[in-house]
Amino acid sequence: MAFDMLANFRDDLPAAPGAWAEPPDFAFVGGHNDPESIPFTGLAEAAVTVLRREGRNLATYNLGGSPQGYLPLREFVMSGLGARAGMTGSPDQVLIVSGSLQALDLVNQAMLSSGDTVLIEMATYGGMVSRLERLGVKYVGIELDDHGIVPAALRATLADLAATGVTPKYLYTIPTVQNPTGSVLPTERRREILDIAREFGVPIFDDECYADLTWGCERPPSFRALDGDRGQVIYCGSFSKSIAPALRVGYIIADEPVIQQLLALKTDAGTGALEQLTLAEYAPTHFDDHVEQLMVALQTKCDAMVSAVKEHFGDAVHVTEPLGGIYCWLTFPEGTDTASFAAAAAAEGIEFNPGAGWSADPEWGKRRLRLCFGQAAPDTIRAGVAKLAEVCRNNGVLSS
Amino acid sequence: MAFDMLANFRDDLPAAPGAWAEPPDFAFVGGHNDPESIPFTGLAEAAVTVLRREGRNLATYNLGGSPQGYLPLREFVMSGLGARAGMTGSPDQVLIVSGSLQALDLVNQAMLSSGDTVLIEMATYGGMVSRLERLGVKYVGIELDDHGIVPAALRATLADLAATGVTPKYLYTIPTVQNPTGSVLPTERRREILDIAREFGVPIFDDECYADLTWGCERPPSFRALDGDRGQVIYCGSFSKSIAPALRVGYIIADEPVIQQLLALKTDAGTGALEQLTLAEYAPTHFDDHVEQLMVALQTKCDAMVSAVKEHFGDAVHVTEPLGGIYCWLTFPEGTDTASFAAAAAAEGIEFNPGAGWSADPEWGKRRLRLCFGQAAPDTIRAGVAKLAEVCRNNGVLSS
Repeated sequence: MAFDMLANFRDDLPAAPGAWAEPPDFAFVGGHNDPESIPFTGLAEAAVTVLRREGRNLATYNLGGSPQGYLPLREFVMSGLGARAGMTGSPDQVLIVSGSLQALDLVNQAMLSSGDTVLIEMATYGGMVSRLERLGVKYVGIELDDHGIVPAALRATLADLAATGVTPKYLYTIPTVQNPTGSVLPTERRREILDIAREFGVPIFDDECYADLTWGCERPPSFRALDGDRGQVIYCGSFSKSIAPALRVGYIIADEPVIQQLLALKTDAGTGALEQLTLAEYAPTHFDDHVEQLMVALQTKCDAMVSAVKEHFGDAVHVTEPLGGIYCWLTFPEGTDTASFAAAAAAEGIEFNPGAGWSADPEWGKRRLRLCFGQAAPDTIRAGVAKLAEVCRNNGVLSS
Repeated sequence: MAFDMLANFRDDLPAAPGAWAEPPDFAFVGGHNDPESIPFTGLAEAAVTVLRREGRNLATYNLGGSPQGYLPLREFVMSGLGARAGMTGSPDQVLIVSGSLQALDLVNQAMLSSGDTVLIEMATYGGMVSRLERLGVKYVGIELDDHGIVPAALRATLADLAATGVTPKYLYTIPTVQNPTGSVLPTERRREILDIAREFGVPIFDDECYADLTWGCERPPSFRALDGDRGQVIYCGSFSKSIAPALRVGYIIADEPVIQQLLALKTDAGTGALEQLTLAEYAPTHFDDHVEQLMVALQTKCDAMVSAVKEHFGDAVHVTEPLGGIYCWLTFPEGTDTASFAAAAAAEGIEFNPGAGWSADPEWGKRRLRLCFGQAAPDTIRAGVAKLAEVCRNNGVLSS
């Protein structure tokens, strides 16, 4: 008789994902990027150069260096990427992580216990919402307008919580190329929000993983830059969006004692060295030019998607005009449930993110949806959006 | 006034590791490997070839394929590495993980709750002991002899536990090139142990991460191979020991529903694609030859270390003669505490693993220690061992 291994597993595990299926024709989900913009030739050259020079060091965990990550990569993160967000500091304030999702996991593991409360943006990254759910952490969504968090709403929520004796463990924010709305929080609002966070003693967990792809305005300084040496902000970023998502390299920037404490929770014996070496060799001389070219390609796709949504969905649906990134956010008329036509869309080869999963309040989010334009070619985007509008009409969501 | 971020952290976190320091002259700790044997030229060629061919796929998470990992790599794991351990199966039974430490974390997360009991080997991997401590899981050590687990001791422990109503969640074993003793469990004993595990309904968690480096005997079939389709074994392995530890690529082999459930806990959006691509391109044509050459180098280092221990420590200390891998295990006279001279050794530039941390019972382990020979050159090994013996004599551990 066979042994029932799964009967020996915990009974509170998330459901298994089920068999993997080929992506559909119109995959408007996921943080995928433009295949034509992957700098694989430059990455290959960098890999060869650095392996010839330092390949022997692969024999030692962490390449014989600090478990915080390969020093030249931490130097580039601080002086190259940090500078883009107005930050200065030392590579000792950088922890290289295995994708920015590991940054979320490490910070959550360090800060959160079941029953805690955190603040998130009303529309936010779905992977953070699902993480908080699994941890048994309560989350309160803060109102967003076209520029991001509304400071008065943040203050009101914090005052309400304070009246019940609750200080949120952090404010999780994606201020620059907000996920999913694509907005960029203006500098002055960042200062206001930082003041409020200081007043209420709430840490800011600043996720700028899309921020290197800001094209619609000047990129403001990050919360951590504005905070100076006050220590109220933990910052994270990623190479997934600027170079390639299948590379799993992200980073946390925070004060050194915070980095050290997070490092104690990083039990993977280091982030993959070949990816760190290759990025550190490639990025200092290529990153800026590459991102410039990538943004041109993404902006073309963005325009294709936004104009197709306007053309095919008309006035009934509001679509954001993202200032960067790889997604736009659609709002349907009151009473719509975008999950209701997800299966019909899937049958036509279209995948999108229903808004309920991308929102602090599923009721608020359910008439919304996220469409990603990073991966598909402009013609595919236009065809898919037209088809999605047809699905909506066939399902009574849009009038014919 | 600065904000105290750490005051907002949980109060049950492991201690921060403290500032990183350059490795000492005689680094006999850690799973490091032979720098002269890293096949960096072959890896570079593989990286170039595969990036030219499939580089565009980096634009998509998981290279556009299953989150279980890059299919050609899973195929090699099953038909190349699995075959070395007598296993057959499909790539659907393989989950690529970010180093075999992630395998430990995923299996523990799936199976263990605070207060549970597991069985480990009396001497075992220190990183597993510290993980179990953090999880609040009780562990019972099973007696080892020169060949590994003593079946009668396993049966006696299981019977004792059963009498108190306890079924251990798993037996964690490193049967092939046991860490730290370097023994290899004979096939017949594996069958006995599997029979006992079946009788008591205990899953086997089979860690063969050093097993590709078996040179002192023929490699026996793994527990999973012997188990056939009975489903009682979760197997894990790694490229860290056979190729390079700074690459973070390991794998789990188990029945598909088990793999799917573990996948639901893998929240890192995939293991680094550049490392998966490069290994999958390199390994099918180079792995066997590379490992043959690596084992010659390691065996030379092993001989250097074992003979130096015998020469400088004499009869007072017993040293194992490993059948593979990168470490040997020393047993000092009753009453010795090997941690007592760790600081004196460090002052002489020598690092070793005191046995208490590598043992189910620190009292049992404290007269033991682990010395790794993978990284240092043979002359360095001989010099370091001589110096360690001198430290022991100076500290009254060995008679002068």
